[in-house]
Amino acid sequence: MSPLRRSPSPCSSRPSSPRTPPLERFGPVGIEAVLDQLKIKAMKTGFEFNIMVVGQSGLGKSTMVNTLFKSKVWKSAVPSLEVPTPQTLELHSVSHVIEEKGLKLKLTVTDTPGFGDQINNDKCLRPLDIEFLQRLCRTVNVVPVIARADSLTIEEREAFRSRIQQNLKAHCIDVYPQKCFDEDINDSILNGKIREQIPFAVVGADQEHLVNGRCILGRKTKWGIIEVENIAHCEFLLLRDLLIRSHLQDLKDITHNVHYENYRVIRLNESHQLPRGPGWVNLAPPGQLTSPGCLKVRRQAQKDSKDDER
Amino acid sequence: MSPLRRSPSPCSSRPSSPRTPPLERFGPVGIEAVLDQLKIKAMKTGFEFNIMVVGQSGLGKSTMVNTLFKSKVWKSAVPSLEVPTPQTLELHSVSHVIEEKGLKLKLTVTDTPGFGDQINNDKCLRPLDIEFLQRLCRTVNVVPVIARADSLTIEEREAFRSRIQQNLKAHCIDVYPQKCFDEDINDSILNGKIREQIPFAVVGADQEHLVNGRCILGRKTKWGIIEVENIAHCEFLLLRDLLIRSHLQDLKDITHNVHYENYRVIRLNESHQLPRGPGWVNLAPPGQLTSPGCLKVRRQAQKDSKDDER
Repeated sequence: MSPLRRSPSPCSSRPSSPRTPPLERFGPVGIEAVLDQLKIKAMKTGFEFNIMVVGQSGLGKSTMVNTLFKSKVWKSAVPSLEVPTPQTLELHSVSHVIEEKGLKLKLTVTDTPGFGDQINNDKCLRPLDIEFLQRLCRTVNVVPVIARADSLTIEEREAFRSRIQQNLKAHCIDVYPQKCFDEDINDSILNGKIREQIPFAVVGADQEHLVNGRCILGRKTKWGIIEVENIAHCEFLLLRDLLIRSHLQDLKDITHNVHYENYRVIRLNESHQLPRGPGWVNLAPPGQLTSPGCLKVRRQAQKDSKDDER
Repeated sequence: MSPLRRSPSPCSSRPSSPRTPPLERFGPVGIEAVLDQLKIKAMKTGFEFNIMVVGQSGLGKSTMVNTLFKSKVWKSAVPSLEVPTPQTLELHSVSHVIEEKGLKLKLTVTDTPGFGDQINNDKCLRPLDIEFLQRLCRTVNVVPVIARADSLTIEEREAFRSRIQQNLKAHCIDVYPQKCFDEDINDSILNGKIREQIPFAVVGADQEHLVNGRCILGRKTKWGIIEVENIAHCEFLLLRDLLIRSHLQDLKDITHNVHYENYRVIRLNESHQLPRGPGWVNLAPPGQLTSPGCLKVRRQAQKDSKDDER
C-alpha cells in the first residue's frame, strides 16, 4: 500500500462550451455509491437467515421462534399418545419468507426433536449439554438462553445465569459473540456487555393482551401479565436485538467466513485422495479454533482452503 | 415455503404497570435493521475491488485508471532503452486504499505488460484478441473500451464500435453486463442500454484546466480542450458510472458467485484423486457457461462445488 497522491491542478484559463453536470450527490469518484448498491440489492433479493433451536420438548422453542418473528413461523411436533417421542436425533427444517418494510428475509428454522428427551434433566448443563456445546460452538454461533424464565424468581434467575457462565468458561465453550472476533475497542465494549448478560432469560408468548389501550404480547397469569417485550419483565428484547437488530449480519459473516471456511479446510484435509503437496494444510486440533488466537486461525483457514483449491 | 399467519390478537383488558418502549424506528420484528448493519460494516471494514487492465503499451491504461479514481493510483512501466519491453506476459499488481466520505476502497490494479506488443496490431480484434477474450470472459467480467477515443472522428468511433459489437457477437464473447444474469425486467432495460453502448469510447487525462472558472479534467489541444467528464465529448462518465457508481457490487457478486464458483468446480473436478461418488460433477464444456442457460449453470456450479466438499 503506497500513499495516494492527488493529481496536481495546473489550471489554465481556456474556456469550453458544454458543461459537465455538477457532482452533488457523490464525491469526485463516487465510491460511496456502493452503499446504495448494497441497499438496492438487499431490497431486491432479500437475505437468508438460518436458526437451529435446540432443547428438550416443552421448553417453548416454537413459541420463542414465533415471538421473535411475530408470526406462526414454526410449530414443533407435540408428542402425542399415537406418535411417540422420537428416539433419535433427526433434524427438521421449515422455511418462510418474512417481509417487513419491503425487505424480505428467508428464514429457515431447524428443530432437533428428541434432543435429550431420553436423559434425566434434573440438573442443567449436565455432561450431554457440555459435550454438545463444546462441539457445536466450533461449528456454528451458539446463543444460549434461559427458557421459560417466568418460572424463576429474580434470585434464581441470576444464580442460574451465573452458574451457566461459570460452566461455559470452565469447559471452554465459546458462545457468540466470541471475544476473539471483536475487531476494535467499540466491539469489545458492546459485545462485552452482551457477554455479561448471556444467557438471556427469556419468556415467549403467542397471545396478545390489552394493557392500557395497547396490545401487549405476554403470558396472562392470575397475578398479572408477564410482558414479553418489557425489559423489566424478561430479556426477550435483548435476545431479539442481538439476533435481528444489531448482530444479524455479523452472525452471517462469522458463519460464512469462519465456520464454513473451517469446515471446508477440514473436509479437504480429510480427503486422503488429495495429493499432499505444498498446499497441504496440517490443521491445528479443532480445540484451538476457540483459543484466543482464533482470529488468526480464521484468516489462515480462509487462505488455506483457497490454497487447497489451487 | 408456507404462507405466514399473523398471531391472532384476542386482547383482554388487564392493566399492567411498566411500559414497553415504543417501536418507532423499526417494524415489529426489525428485519430492516440489517440495512444499517450492512452500512455500518461497509463503513468500518471498507471493501475491495480488483481491476486488470489489458492492452498494448501506449493505449493510456495507467492514465485511464488514474482518471477513474482521481489519483495517481498507478504508473505503468514505460519501456526505456535500458529496460526492454517484456517479452512474456507477466502480471503486476499494485494496491491502494482510496477513501471518500469515510468509506474505504482497497483497489488493486493489475497490469499485463507486454500484452500483444510483439504482434502487428494494425487491425483491432485480430485473432489474439478474440482468443484471449473468449477465454477471459469465462473467468472474469470483461468490460471492453475504445481507448484514446479522441483520435477518432464521430463516424470512425461509431463504425469501430459497431464492428467490435459484431465481432463480440460472432465469436460468442459475452462481455459484462451479461444478458443471462439479468434478474428482472428492470435489469434488462438498464443493462440493455449499456450493452448497446459498449464498448465505451473513452479519453483519459491527468491534467486539469480552468474552464469558465472551474477546474476541468481534460486534454488541451490546439483546437480546444477535450473534457474527460463531459458526456458530449467522450463516454468516460458512462464507464465510471458502470464500474463504480451503479454496478460495482454486481461486478463483485458475479465474480464471487459465478466465476469463482465455476473455478472451484473445475479445480475440484480436475483433481482425479477425488472419488467419483454421487457428488461427482460432470461439468458442461466451459463454452456453455456463456450460453443463455448460464444462470442455471451458475446456480448449479455453486451447489455442485458445495456437494463436492461433502
